[in-house]
Amino acid sequence: MDHAAILERITASMRAAPDVGEVARYIPELASVDPNQFGICIALADGQVFASGDADRRFSIQSISKVFTLALALGRFGERLWQRVGREPSGQPFNSILQLEHEKGIPRNPFINAGALVVTDAILAGHAPREVLGELLRFVRAAAGDEDIHIDEAVARSETDHGDRNMALAHFMAAHGNFENRPALTCGTYFHQCAIEMTTRQLALAGRFLIGGPRSGGLISPASVRRINALMLTCGHYDGSGDFAYRVGLPGKSGVGGGILVIAPGRASIAVWSPGLNQHGNSQLGTLAAERFAQATGWSVFG
Amino acid sequence: MDHAAILERITASMRAAPDVGEVARYIPELASVDPNQFGICIALADGQVFASGDADRRFSIQSISKVFTLALALGRFGERLWQRVGREPSGQPFNSILQLEHEKGIPRNPFINAGALVVTDAILAGHAPREVLGELLRFVRAAAGDEDIHIDEAVARSETDHGDRNMALAHFMAAHGNFENRPALTCGTYFHQCAIEMTTRQLALAGRFLIGGPRSGGLISPASVRRINALMLTCGHYDGSGDFAYRVGLPGKSGVGGGILVIAPGRASIAVWSPGLNQHGNSQLGTLAAERFAQATGWSVFG
Amino acid sequence: MDHAAILERITASMRAAPDVGEVARYIPELASVDPNQFGICIALADGQVFASGDADRRFSIQSISKVFTLALALGRFGERLWQRVGREPSGQPFNSILQLEHEKGIPRNPFINAGALVVTDAILAGHAPREVLGELLRFVRAAAGDEDIHIDEAVARSETDHGDRNMALAHFMAAHGNFENRPALTCGTYFHQCAIEMTTRQLALAGRFLIGGPRSGGLISPASVRRINALMLTCGHYDGSGDFAYRVGLPGKSGVGGGILVIAPGRASIAVWSPGLNQHGNSQLGTLAAERFAQATGWSVFG
Amino acid sequence: MDHAAILERITASMRAAPDVGEVARYIPELASVDPNQFGICIALADGQVFASGDADRRFSIQSISKVFTLALALGRFGERLWQRVGREPSGQPFNSILQLEHEKGIPRNPFINAGALVVTDAILAGHAPREVLGELLRFVRAAAGDEDIHIDEAVARSETDHGDRNMALAHFMAAHGNFENRPALTCGTYFHQCAIEMTTRQLALAGRFLIGGPRSGGLISPASVRRINALMLTCGHYDGSGDFAYRVGLPGKSGVGGGILVIAPGRASIAVWSPGLNQHGNSQLGTLAAERFAQATGWSVFG
Repeated sequence: MDHAAILERITASMRAAPDVGEVARYIPELASVDPNQFGICIALADGQVFASGDADRRFSIQSISKVFTLALALGRFGERLWQRVGREPSGQPFNSILQLEHEKGIPRNPFINAGALVVTDAILAGHAPREVLGELLRFVRAAAGDEDIHIDEAVARSETDHGDRNMALAHFMAAHGNFENRPALTCGTYFHQCAIEMTTRQLALAGRFLIGGPRSGGLISPASVRRINALMLTCGHYDGSGDFAYRVGLPGKSGVGGGILVIAPGRASIAVWSPGLNQHGNSQLGTLAAERFAQATGWSVFG
Repeated sequence: MDHAAILERITASMRAAPDVGEVARYIPELASVDPNQFGICIALADGQVFASGDADRRFSIQSISKVFTLALALGRFGERLWQRVGREPSGQPFNSILQLEHEKGIPRNPFINAGALVVTDAILAGHAPREVLGELLRFVRAAAGDEDIHIDEAVARSETDHGDRNMALAHFMAAHGNFENRPALTCGTYFHQCAIEMTTRQLALAGRFLIGGPRSGGLISPASVRRINALMLTCGHYDGSGDFAYRVGLPGKSGVGGGILVIAPGRASIAVWSPGLNQHGNSQLGTLAAERFAQATGWSVFG
Repeated sequence: MDHAAILERITASMRAAPDVGEVARYIPELASVDPNQFGICIALADGQVFASGDADRRFSIQSISKVFTLALALGRFGERLWQRVGREPSGQPFNSILQLEHEKGIPRNPFINAGALVVTDAILAGHAPREVLGELLRFVRAAAGDEDIHIDEAVARSETDHGDRNMALAHFMAAHGNFENRPALTCGTYFHQCAIEMTTRQLALAGRFLIGGPRSGGLISPASVRRINALMLTCGHYDGSGDFAYRVGLPGKSGVGGGILVIAPGRASIAVWSPGLNQHGNSQLGTLAAERFAQATGWSVFG
Repeated sequence: MDHAAILERITASMRAAPDVGEVARYIPELASVDPNQFGICIALADGQVFASGDADRRFSIQSISKVFTLALALGRFGERLWQRVGREPSGQPFNSILQLEHEKGIPRNPFINAGALVVTDAILAGHAPREVLGELLRFVRAAAGDEDIHIDEAVARSETDHGDRNMALAHFMAAHGNFENRPALTCGTYFHQCAIEMTTRQLALAGRFLIGGPRSGGLISPASVRRINALMLTCGHYDGSGDFAYRVGLPGKSGVGGGILVIAPGRASIAVWSPGLNQHGNSQLGTLAAERFAQATGWSVFG
């Protein structure tokens, strides 16, 4: 299979796409990004790496960070984590508070905002935010094999200034006894984890620990690999998860910065990036590119 | 891999399970089934078949029939089907009416009751129920390679007598213009499709068309295989779908009669059956057996 | 107080109103009514009657009929009625099915459609629809002191043909065990009660039994008078009830045919009619006229 | 009418009641109150005052304070207030966040917590909390004709320590742009207003401004009197408002400290207090006493 040619064709096709979606507007730092960018990178299980387009531009990984904090939390707490957060698709937007009220402060899964806050709250307990963020960066850098991965402080500050919705979720869970730290402390840590900057290439490399098999590098257990992939497939795109599974057929996790990490178990880690978003808050061209890639390679977990 | 030994060990373990769940009570025919039964059967891509336990007792496939009607509908309507039904997990119980109100009569996916009614309504349009049920039986028999598969009329009648909830869903969608036949006609057809009786062995054989590759037998296209498996994985167990994906890691579809059809893409079709249900309405031992099977074989779509 | 002059001024003002709302479209019979009509009539406790505008044109009373069936049901079942229906504002549109799911088939109050269906179902049990409709017409005619009040069969048939939403509500309650008759039977009766035709004058006269005191004519007990007025005030305009209480300050019940029955306890029964509806499904000019009337008379239950 | 005898009979009856409900537990200061207390006081429009039971014990007025802040806000902003808060019954518990999500941060009415926070946020804008609380105390003292009314700082602190649910509501509205101050500032002010301590007698006297007519003392306009009473009747007891209207027939506002302010328009202001609560969070004996009082006097706004 000529991976390089596949990526080039996809990039060319995305460059010509008439509708690139709209960039996230809720914080100024994200709103000012040029939507006419597209990058794709694939890191194969055998070590080969192919990239195309704007694969070396840095972007804010945002919710893709939830994959890394979940990996840390599963490593530390194992199955106990599920006492505080579920693992079911929510059928609701990423920032919805509705189910929390009916379900007594237990979020549906670790990839909606409420669930990700609980995960961060869990790994924060007993530690300073600085320590936890340091541990997270070490994990991401080790996974990517690249030390040049950092938090964009301007984005983190901007998210803090516009973080009322997440603060509401945090206080709501605290009211139900499902929070261990002060809401502002956990939210502050969460805003920083979301503000990690990576290139598409770095993200593809960092995702290799989810391929499974020898290339996973021992960062997490084989069982955790499967479980995180299962959660990515069922919950990784919020109320667009079913659509992504149907069209792409591979586990994926999107971020509002326009990135998507896609895993082809046993085969490759794929990263796509384009800042314009569709109505579910997932990258418009990124989703389309992932679909084209799956069609071109025939890769699908579903047969 | 010694499949026979794996099945025997699982069966022995299930025979010793302390909690077998409770049989469905909403219709008398299902309520009178002995919950202390368990069967498992695996049909490999290479043609080998292994069975254990009560694999040759007939049971009511109930919602597993939704997989077969979806296959018929995708074959007939292709992507147009998605104008009338979504493909997202609902995050709600199988018979919930809540989202229909917010979403103007378009059900979330074809595996919750509302969505399955739409699928049946679509393939019924312009035909008599008898014709449609005949076509469905021909499909199931061809898939199983077994002509001895029938509808249990007593179960169908009993479901009709206790079908108010489904009638409510049907009328509600009709009120939103998302129904082509009279609600009573479509519901009657639906109650009959749910009343198909099969053995665990027959179900495993019938599921081979979803393995993909040459063994799928050309009943549906490779693309449809992948799409149905994707829907089974994200939506096949209602609000327990995420849990099934996490624990089993394979696409599956459950029925309130206690059966579960599980697909290991490229490898096998697996059927398990035990009439006792857990709180989500899925077979208690069947789910557990599927999990044990996945652990024993190491089969998972997630790495 | 010069009631005649007040009514004339209001009628003149309504004739000049720029926005008369839109007539109900869901059945052809209501959709074809000319929206540029307005009538008002007041029946005082002392026996005087004043009318203005199109007060002698017949219209479909629709949901105002719920007041009369509630009066019959309270007379027959007393407080036992509240085992099957609540008496709280729903905070939802008149035809919502949402709360039924969370609240196990018990509708919030007797004035939303689900609750009115339960009331009709209760008075229907053990009787033929013809008998119950006969009893209802006798009650309404006795209250109005006018035998010339009838059911418009064309409207009743048309509602039956477009009755899927109410059929859904009925089947849903039946599924929860909160229905005594076949859904189609109760719905058929309900569609006929809604199709009663009255003039604005007849409606004002029929409403006198809710004034309380000697003019109530002994049709219902003083306690029932208070209770029905309480329910009209808190629930009579669906999710516009709070607004009506705030602006008008008197109990009222609207119908989708454009009529509103308003009660000034101890003083008068007032009927207004104009077929154009606002966004809550209540008469646009009728609501405005009721507000003007309350301002002009200073009548309010709130001081 | 022998008001003194009526109050004595009610008090004796309440002293013998078998079930006094349970005191609010969410903050320690309220949880430690003895539930076996009951007080009632009536302040007639003609100036007479009658009291019985523990009418001179101080208690925390909690949500009854919402009546006073609403009066201030209506005085300052008039109808403009309704751009930020609705006036419909919510059909939900007092602290629900559900509707805020569907309705873009506009609370249903000023008596649920979210709505009361908006009211406090409105009167706080541009002022220091100390000033606003001073203005509120001056209003309450003037209404009661009693300077000895204060805020219990221990209760206010305790509410702040357990205020996550209200903080969640505040941040959620801030996220929708419906908040003018920092959530912590408005919530702090709100917790202090709720911590006002009054006796049952003081509360009855303070409520006279809502009787209407000359005894209202000119604190607010006659139109505001009617409007606040309308809101108390439709929304004053959260999702128990319909029940209170049905059983008592008078506008009322309850607080989680066990107090209820009831208005008989044109006649009297009535206060009842007993710390035990029913399942809606309203005083168990207080509600019962209000119902007995309405029966004994025959007072009802509904005829």
